[in-house]
Amino acid sequence: MIRVTIARPDTGARDAARRRQEQLVKPPGSLGRLEELAVWLAGVAGEERPVLRPRVVVAAADHGVAAEGVSAYPAEVTGQMLGTVATGRAAVSALARLLDAPVTVVDAGVRGAPPMDGVQRLGLTPSRNLATAPALDAVAVQTALDAGRAIARAARERGENVLVGGELGIGNTTPATALACWLTGRDPRELAGRGTGLDDAGVERKAAVVQRALDLHGPAIDGPLEALRRLGGGDLAVLTGLALGAGEHGVGLVCDGVIATAAIAVAVERQPALAPWLLAGHRSAEPAHGALLDHLGLEPILDLGMRLGEGTGATAALAVLGLAASAHDGMATFAEAGVSEA
Amino acid sequence: MIRVTIARPDTGARDAARRRQEQLVKPPGSLGRLEELAVWLAGVAGEERPVLRPRVVVAAADHGVAAEGVSAYPAEVTGQMLGTVATGRAAVSALARLLDAPVTVVDAGVRGAPPMDGVQRLGLTPSRNLATAPALDAVAVQTALDAGRAIARAARERGENVLVGGELGIGNTTPATALACWLTGRDPRELAGRGTGLDDAGVERKAAVVQRALDLHGPAIDGPLEALRRLGGGDLAVLTGLALGAGEHGVGLVCDGVIATAAIAVAVERQPALAPWLLAGHRSAEPAHGALLDHLGLEPILDLGMRLGEGTGATAALAVLGLAASAHDGMATFAEAGVSEA
Repeated sequence: MIRVTIARPDTGARDAARRRQEQLVKPPGSLGRLEELAVWLAGVAGEERPVLRPRVVVAAADHGVAAEGVSAYPAEVTGQMLGTVATGRAAVSALARLLDAPVTVVDAGVRGAPPMDGVQRLGLTPSRNLATAPALDAVAVQTALDAGRAIARAARERGENVLVGGELGIGNTTPATALACWLTGRDPRELAGRGTGLDDAGVERKAAVVQRALDLHGPAIDGPLEALRRLGGGDLAVLTGLALGAGEHGVGLVCDGVIATAAIAVAVERQPALAPWLLAGHRSAEPAHGALLDHLGLEPILDLGMRLGEGTGATAALAVLGLAASAHDGMATFAEAGVSEA
Repeated sequence: MIRVTIARPDTGARDAARRRQEQLVKPPGSLGRLEELAVWLAGVAGEERPVLRPRVVVAAADHGVAAEGVSAYPAEVTGQMLGTVATGRAAVSALARLLDAPVTVVDAGVRGAPPMDGVQRLGLTPSRNLATAPALDAVAVQTALDAGRAIARAARERGENVLVGGELGIGNTTPATALACWLTGRDPRELAGRGTGLDDAGVERKAAVVQRALDLHGPAIDGPLEALRRLGGGDLAVLTGLALGAGEHGVGLVCDGVIATAAIAVAVERQPALAPWLLAGHRSAEPAHGALLDHLGLEPILDLGMRLGEGTGATAALAVLGLAASAHDGMATFAEAGVSEA
């Protein structure tokens, strides 16, 4: 279906950055996670003193499963929000603007969305209801994966070194939870969450829908990309492709919430060598997100109770990555500053 | 000793900001802490859609208690680091630069420091060893408190709305831990930490020194400012003054690590009405810091394992505050975006 060769981070640049951290004018380790992030970015960027050059990618799709009553919002909101992101007025737009991160917007199957400036259209129809049919056909999943990979390649060619993958799509925590259950073996009743604001009955309904989807498709799933095709959706498949492309072309990728992280976890299941290219941007309020972070062995940078999606949590984490790069580059060494060591 | 009237945040601006958050194009509450921070900043700045205008204040002092072997670094490092901050090459300098936050540097008793461009000198001598004498005399503590208050006033006059209080001073986690023990009633053996890198024996030594100081001064301490004079130091007293001034003149203040938070907690003990002007920037690795945050009822914004001081953790948190303000100002409302509500 898809064959990619995953690159390796630049261990020379990473080691040089680690040595630099040891020489900077501070007690060893005292910048905590900022030190690790600077070293990670050095390996990703291939520079001892890297500059953060980010891009945010937002993939949008509609989901037939929304008809099961698994979202607090009506399905037309996906198309309306696509326009809001395209015109720079969504939450992710405001955060990305502050951080000088350009935003790529992809329509991966939004119902009735007209062509819009700044939106890349893949010509896909809305993803089908995973409780009753595979979400995507083989052509659709391949189109979405290829689009994600191409975005990562283009980012690399422009000299960008860190991507955020975000999404929007009414109902899309349901396919994400289904994928999380398939990947981790956990029960839908444990992992189904409130999404944009379901009540208890809605969460129970969502768990039952996920269980139906797992019962229907489980026996036919022979690997992670088939799980993505049957249980996922257009937005998720673009982000899985983005993750594969990030590893293939050597760009860092910051995981956002439950949907983006589920999509990326599918890519890691297929290509475990992707792991060193990844960071977890934040811990969302969705229970399936915690399960996925544990599964991937990732420790989130931020824990701010965010649960909006769009890439907002990962974009917020870019700010911390920028701080890490600034301290790493802007501090003097003990020798330069003439400061005595311990 | 010192009388200040604490202002109140602007409840009109805060309520207007809260209403705006409810109208922004996202599920209610889905930006988590970013929503609360935007509302907090609105109250502090007195504007429905506030712009973050920060300043970082770094107070430095030497501490006679360093002679007790309570630091991993030699005492001359305080003066060397004062020069490093003054010339913009310390960790806090690099972080503040990225965030466009100017840095005020105060010499509150650094041994043998020559006059330096960009350093405000208070004419104080190093703080005495709290294990054997009061750290400061009455004139010194008043001078330092007044200096901190004046910095907050000047910030307000320039239109700055959020301050970070940072410090540097070899040995200063010892007075901070002593103040934390006095404020919280906890035992020095519970709260003494590794500071810049003590081994187990060093931590035990530090706990014993704190206990000696508490035994010596405890009976004579009749209130928080007398605790500050006897157990604190010049850097801590400037930050206590900064906190009082922040409340007096209506400027927000982000708590950094154990030293800054101990100094601010002294101010809150004196003037509990200060509380709404405060945020906790981060959770440091020092046990006394956790005890102080619990005591103040503050939930840190970041938890990145930082333990450098200088104001670095709180300055890093300014980045999150900036994101909060950007999302709050830059997002459309549901009505503006033409998006359907739940």
